[in-house]
Amino acid sequence: MSSPADHGLLSPVWAGTAVESLTDDDAVVRALLRVEAALLTAQSAPEGAAQAVAALRFDSRSLALAAVAGGNPVIPLVAAVREAVPDEVAAWVHRGATSQDVLDSALMLVVDDVRREVLVDLGSVAAHLASLADRTRAVPALARTLTQPALPTTLGFRVAGWLAGVQDAAAALLACDLPASLGGPVGHGFAPDVVAAFAGELGLAAPVVGWHVRRTPVVGMAHALTVAGGAVGKIAADLLVMAQGEVGEAREGAPGGSSSMPHKANPTQSVLVVSAARQLPALASVLGASLVAEQERATGGWHAEWEPLRSMLRLAGGAAARGATYLPSVEYDEDALARNLAGLDVTADLTHVDAWIDRVLARQEEVFP
Amino acid sequence: MSSPADHGLLSPVWAGTAVESLTDDDAVVRALLRVEAALLTAQSAPEGAAQAVAALRFDSRSLALAAVAGGNPVIPLVAAVREAVPDEVAAWVHRGATSQDVLDSALMLVVDDVRREVLVDLGSVAAHLASLADRTRAVPALARTLTQPALPTTLGFRVAGWLAGVQDAAAALLACDLPASLGGPVGHGFAPDVVAAFAGELGLAAPVVGWHVRRTPVVGMAHALTVAGGAVGKIAADLLVMAQGEVGEAREGAPGGSSSMPHKANPTQSVLVVSAARQLPALASVLGASLVAEQERATGGWHAEWEPLRSMLRLAGGAAARGATYLPSVEYDEDALARNLAGLDVTADLTHVDAWIDRVLARQEEVFP
Amino acid sequence: MSSPADHGLLSPVWAGTAVESLTDDDAVVRALLRVEAALLTAQSAPEGAAQAVAALRFDSRSLALAAVAGGNPVIPLVAAVREAVPDEVAAWVHRGATSQDVLDSALMLVVDDVRREVLVDLGSVAAHLASLADRTRAVPALARTLTQPALPTTLGFRVAGWLAGVQDAAAALLACDLPASLGGPVGHGFAPDVVAAFAGELGLAAPVVGWHVRRTPVVGMAHALTVAGGAVGKIAADLLVMAQGEVGEAREGAPGGSSSMPHKANPTQSVLVVSAARQLPALASVLGASLVAEQERATGGWHAEWEPLRSMLRLAGGAAARGATYLPSVEYDEDALARNLAGLDVTADLTHVDAWIDRVLARQEEVFP
Amino acid sequence: MSSPADHGLLSPVWAGTAVESLTDDDAVVRALLRVEAALLTAQSAPEGAAQAVAALRFDSRSLALAAVAGGNPVIPLVAAVREAVPDEVAAWVHRGATSQDVLDSALMLVVDDVRREVLVDLGSVAAHLASLADRTRAVPALARTLTQPALPTTLGFRVAGWLAGVQDAAAALLACDLPASLGGPVGHGFAPDVVAAFAGELGLAAPVVGWHVRRTPVVGMAHALTVAGGAVGKIAADLLVMAQGEVGEAREGAPGGSSSMPHKANPTQSVLVVSAARQLPALASVLGASLVAEQERATGGWHAEWEPLRSMLRLAGGAAARGATYLPSVEYDEDALARNLAGLDVTADLTHVDAWIDRVLARQEEVFP
Repeated sequence: MSSPADHGLLSPVWAGTAVESLTDDDAVVRALLRVEAALLTAQSAPEGAAQAVAALRFDSRSLALAAVAGGNPVIPLVAAVREAVPDEVAAWVHRGATSQDVLDSALMLVVDDVRREVLVDLGSVAAHLASLADRTRAVPALARTLTQPALPTTLGFRVAGWLAGVQDAAAALLACDLPASLGGPVGHGFAPDVVAAFAGELGLAAPVVGWHVRRTPVVGMAHALTVAGGAVGKIAADLLVMAQGEVGEAREGAPGGSSSMPHKANPTQSVLVVSAARQLPALASVLGASLVAEQERATGGWHAEWEPLRSMLRLAGGAAARGATYLPSVEYDEDALARNLAGLDVTADLTHVDAWIDRVLARQEEVFP
Repeated sequence: MSSPADHGLLSPVWAGTAVESLTDDDAVVRALLRVEAALLTAQSAPEGAAQAVAALRFDSRSLALAAVAGGNPVIPLVAAVREAVPDEVAAWVHRGATSQDVLDSALMLVVDDVRREVLVDLGSVAAHLASLADRTRAVPALARTLTQPALPTTLGFRVAGWLAGVQDAAAALLACDLPASLGGPVGHGFAPDVVAAFAGELGLAAPVVGWHVRRTPVVGMAHALTVAGGAVGKIAADLLVMAQGEVGEAREGAPGGSSSMPHKANPTQSVLVVSAARQLPALASVLGASLVAEQERATGGWHAEWEPLRSMLRLAGGAAARGATYLPSVEYDEDALARNLAGLDVTADLTHVDAWIDRVLARQEEVFP
Repeated sequence: MSSPADHGLLSPVWAGTAVESLTDDDAVVRALLRVEAALLTAQSAPEGAAQAVAALRFDSRSLALAAVAGGNPVIPLVAAVREAVPDEVAAWVHRGATSQDVLDSALMLVVDDVRREVLVDLGSVAAHLASLADRTRAVPALARTLTQPALPTTLGFRVAGWLAGVQDAAAALLACDLPASLGGPVGHGFAPDVVAAFAGELGLAAPVVGWHVRRTPVVGMAHALTVAGGAVGKIAADLLVMAQGEVGEAREGAPGGSSSMPHKANPTQSVLVVSAARQLPALASVLGASLVAEQERATGGWHAEWEPLRSMLRLAGGAAARGATYLPSVEYDEDALARNLAGLDVTADLTHVDAWIDRVLARQEEVFP
Repeated sequence: MSSPADHGLLSPVWAGTAVESLTDDDAVVRALLRVEAALLTAQSAPEGAAQAVAALRFDSRSLALAAVAGGNPVIPLVAAVREAVPDEVAAWVHRGATSQDVLDSALMLVVDDVRREVLVDLGSVAAHLASLADRTRAVPALARTLTQPALPTTLGFRVAGWLAGVQDAAAALLACDLPASLGGPVGHGFAPDVVAAFAGELGLAAPVVGWHVRRTPVVGMAHALTVAGGAVGKIAADLLVMAQGEVGEAREGAPGGSSSMPHKANPTQSVLVVSAARQLPALASVLGASLVAEQERATGGWHAEWEPLRSMLRLAGGAAARGATYLPSVEYDEDALARNLAGLDVTADLTHVDAWIDRVLARQEEVFP
C-alpha cells in the first residue's frame, strides 16, 4: 500500500487551484532547500554549493516520518543534504543555523508565493467588480437589512462595497512584513549584515531582530488571510441571498448539480467560498495564541502553527481563485431586481450613489497599481 | 509532475500513526463506498451488488478535482460507481440518498474507526499511568502552583490526576453518539426501519431524525476529541516543566536532537503533544459554528466541517498514539524530585493521598472494562 | 463618579433575563459565601457559623479591586469574612481550602443555577415546538437546500428537526457533571468523605479526585452551552430565511423597529439569538485550551476561564430565554408557505413524515420527564 | 434589589485600570451622545443643539432593557434624546442616520480612546524595556529552547526581543484605520463631504465608502489588540519561567499572596497578563467571522461583535496597564542568572548581541516618536 496522502478530497474550495501546488509537502521541501542554499550563498560557501543544494530533491514522506523524532522536518533534511553533497560542501551546510530559522524562512517563502498568487486573483476579482460597479451603478436594486426590504439602492452600489472589501484585503496582504529568519540557536548567531544578505537572497525582508519567539509576522499574515477570505466571503454571502429561489436576482454561470435532485442549480461556488471564510478566523486564533512563546523557543506553540498557517494560505487562496473564476460568470437578472424592488412602498435618495462608487473606483489604482 | 499531496510533513504529531491511514483521502473514499454498499443492502438490491460496490476503488485525486463543480466528492463518486457496475446494479446505486447522507455517514465511519484506535491508545496510556500512580504513590514530590513551590505531594498523586483526565477523555469518547445519515434530499426520504437497517449495516447508531442540519453528533465528537487531546496535553505540559533543565525530574526515553546544538536532549514528544492540544479547541469552534445551519442544507457550514473534523481526528489520535508510545519510556528521577522538595520549608499532610489515588484506580474498570 | 459598571447595554440577547441576575458580580459573591459556609458545615464548625457567613454581604466592586493583588477575589473575600465574624468563627473560616476550591465551587453553583433556568426555558421551547410540529405536520412547505427550492416537505417536519436539536441540548446539559472542588492547596488536603459532605451541602457532585488542573467539568459545560445556543440558533436562522421579505413565511410576534425606516418589521429576536450562537464556540475554545494546565495550578489558563464561562452562561441562557418568549409568538403564514411551494415542479414522497415526527415527539418524555 | 451589574470581579487583569472606565456602559452611552451631537454639527443643526445633546445623560440600565425590543441601544436612546430636547432640535436629531451608524461610530470613539491609552502604556513599557535592555546587554543569561539549557545569551538580548514585540504592537495599533460610520439606512444616505465633516468632528477617519457590512476596520483593530496582548503576554510567559522556584532569576516587585499558603510569593501579575493573552485570539475569531455579512445589514454578525470587541479592548488594555505598572518593579537576580548558566558546558559567540540590541533600540524613535 502506498503511504497515506491527502489530495484535496475534502477541500473543493482549493483543490486544483494554484495555491495547492504552492503549498503541498513537496513545495515546502523545495522551499527548505532554497533556504539552505541561500544560507550557503550568504556565508560565501564554495562556488556551486548553493546551486547543488537547491537542485536536490527528497521524498517528502520519508522526511515526514523522520521528522517525528526531533519534532521538525529540518533535522532529517539537513542530514540528508549533508549526505548528498561532497564533504567539502557538507561542512558548510546549515552552518550556524537552527531548524527554526530554516523552517520559518521556508514558510515565509511559501507565504510569499501564495501572497503573489492571491494578489493576482484579488486583482482580477477587483477589476471585474470595478467594471461591474461602473456598468450597474444605476441598476435599481432592493437593499435588505436584517433580511427585510429596506430601501432602494443600486446594484452598482452594492458591488462597490464588495470592491472596497477586496481592496481592503489586498492592502492588508501588501502591508504584511515577510521577514527571513536567521538567528541561529538562540537568536544572535549571525551579524545583521549576514542576515540581510540571506534575506535579500530569498527576496524576504530583513528582521529588526530574530522572531523565533516574536511571532508578529505570522499573526500579521493570518490577519490578512482572514480579511482576504472574508472579503470574497462577503460577496458569496450576498450572492447566496440573491440566488435564492424566491429572490432570483443572481445565478452562477456554472451552478452545481445535486446527486439526488436533477432540477437543482446550486450556487456551489458561493457555498465553497463561504466554507473557506468560516474556517479562517478560528485558524488565525491558533496562530494568535502562539504570540505567547516561552523563552528562546516555544514549547508547542511554534509546532502548532505550521498546519493552521498552511490551511489558511489554501483557504484564502482557494477563495480568491474560485472568486476570480466564478464571479465574472455570475448573471444578474435586472428584471428580478426590479420586481423585488417594486413591492417596496418607499423611495430613497440616490443622489450620492455615484459619488461613493467613484470614490471606490478611484482607490483601485492606489491598491492595484 | 505528480499531483499535489500532503504526507504529514508539517504534522510530526500524527505522521506515521495509525490514525493517519484511517483518515487519508483513500480511507475516506473507501468509507464512501462502504456507505453506498450499505445502502444497497438496506434496500435489498440484487445480490452481489453491495459487495461489488464495496470492492471498487477510485483515484482520490480525480475525485477531488471532480468534486469542485458540485462542491462535494459524492457527486462524481456516484457517477463513477454507476459507470463501473452493470446497468441493473447501476439503477440501484445511491437510490433515494443525497450526497450529504453518504458523506456524513462515511465520515462517521472514519470517526468510529479513529475512536476505536484512540480508545486503545488512551487505554494503554491509562494502564501505564495506573501502574505508575500505584508504584509512585509514596514518592515525595514538590507540588507547584503558579510556578512556585507550594507543598509536598507525591509523584503518584500527580499521576493519578493525569489518569483521571485520561479517564474523562475515554468516557467522553464513549458517550458520543455516532449516527448514520440517511434522510434523502430533504430528510424524510426513507422509513425509520430502512434507516435503522442501513445504520446497523454500518455499525452506526440510528438517528432519532435526520441530522443534515442538526449537527450535534459532529459537535459532540469535536468536544470529545478536544478533551482527549487536552488530557494527554496536560501530562505533556507537566512533563515539560519536570524535564526543564533546572528541574530535571523527568526525561523522555528518546529525547529529540537539535540541528544546531548537539548537547540538547529535547522533550520533543511532549512538545508535539502540546502542539496538538493547542489546535483542537479552535478547530472545534469551527464545528460548533456549524450548528446554526440554514433550512434543509447549510450554505457553507457543512462544507466547512470536513477538514477541521479530520484534523481533529488526527491531532487527538496523534496525541494519544504518541502518548501511548513515549509516556511509558519517561524516566522519573527520584533524587531530583527529592532535591527540589528539600528546599521547601513547609510540611503537608499526606494522609489522604492514598485514598484519592485509590479512587482514581478504582474508576479504571468502569471506564476501560 | 460611581464605579465603572456594565448593565447589559451591549448584550440585548441576555439583558433583563433571569440568567443575568444569576451571573452578575453580586451573584458570584453570594455563591462564594455559600461555599465558605458549606465548608464550615462540612468541617463541623461551631453552630451558627455557616449561617453567619452565608448571610454576610460584601461590595463586589471593592472585592474586584482588592482581587488584583493576589489575582482572584477569594483572597480579599476571606480576609473580609474573617474580619466580619467573631474570632472563634474566624479561626474556622476557609480552613484547609485554597482560593481555587472556593471560586471553582462557586462558579459551579452559578453554573448549576443557570443550567436549571436554561433547562426550564429549553423545556418551554420544546413543549411549544412539540405542539407546533404536531399541529403542522401536514402543512405543506418548501424544503430548501443551498438556498434553492428542493422538494416539498411539511412545516411540522422542519419543526420536528428543531425540536430534536433542543432535545439534544437539554440532554447535553443534563449529562454535565458539576462537581464541587475541595482539594486544598495542592489537591489532597481533605478526605474523600469530607469532600463528599461539602459537595452534598452545595448540591454538587463529589469529584473522583480534585480538578484544579483537570478542567473537564468546565469544558463539558462549555460544550453543552454551545449546543444549547446552537439549537436555538438553528431555529432562528431558519426563521430569518422564512421571515425574509421575498419569502414571507414567518413573522415574529413583536418584530423590531428601526431608527431610520419606520416601515421595517425586523426579525430582531432571531437576530439576537443568532448573535449569541456566533459567540459561543469561540468562547468555548478558550475553555478548551485550559485543559493544558501546568502542575498543580495553571499559570494563566484558569484565570482566563472565568469571564468566557460567564459569558457563555449568559449567551446560552439569553438565547434560551429569548426563544421561550418569542418562538410561541411567531406567526406562520400557510398561504405564503403554499405559494412558495407552488413554483416547484417536483413532487416528493411524504409517506414517512409522520413516522419521523412521531419519533421526535416520543423522545420528549425521555429528555424532559 | 438593584439591577444586575458587573464591576470587574472576574477580571482582575483590567479591574481598576483606565480602560475599564473608558469602556463601561456609561462610556458607551457618552460616546453615542457625542456621535448624535456630531451629526447635528455636520448637518448644521440650530446653534446649541449639538452641545445640548452632548450634555445629556441617560441611565444605561434603562437603555439596556429598552434595547431588547429593537436589538440595539440606539433606538431607545434616540427616542430619549428627542424627548429631552426642544421640539425644534428634536426634528434634527438622528436625521438621516441609522442605528448602526451611531453605534459603530461610538464604538470607534471608544476604540480610539482605548488605543490612545494602550499606546501610552505600551510606550511606558517600551521605555522601561529599552533602558533595561541597554543596562543588561552584557548580563550573562541562559537561553532556553524547548525548556532545555541551550546556549549563553544575555539578559539584555532577551529583553530586546520583548521590546521588539511591544514595538510591533504599537505599530499595529497605529496602523489601524478608525473610520466614522455614516451611511444612513442602506449606505448612501449622505454626501461624502458631509461624512467627512462628521468624521472630522469626531476625530475619526472618513471611510472610502460605508462599512455597515464591510467589517475590515473592526477586524483590523481585533488583530492589533491581539498583538498588543500577545506582546505583553510573551514577556509575562518568560517571567513565569524566570520566576519559577527552581530558576529564581526574576521576582515581581509585589508578588501575590495565597489564601492557603502564607509562604507563597506568586508571580500574579504575569499570570493575569497571560490570562488576557489567552482570551484575545478567540475573541478576535468572533470578529473575523463577522466579515461575512449579508446584504446591507448582517443578520447576527454585527450584534455578535459588540461584547467581544469591548472585551478585547479591556483585555489588551489591562495587559498593557498591568505591564506598565509591574514590569519596572521586576527584580532580576544576576546571581541566579549566572548560576543557571554555570551548569552549561557550552560556549556561545556573543559578538553580535550588541548590534542586534542597538537595532531594536534604534527603532524606538520610529515607533514612539
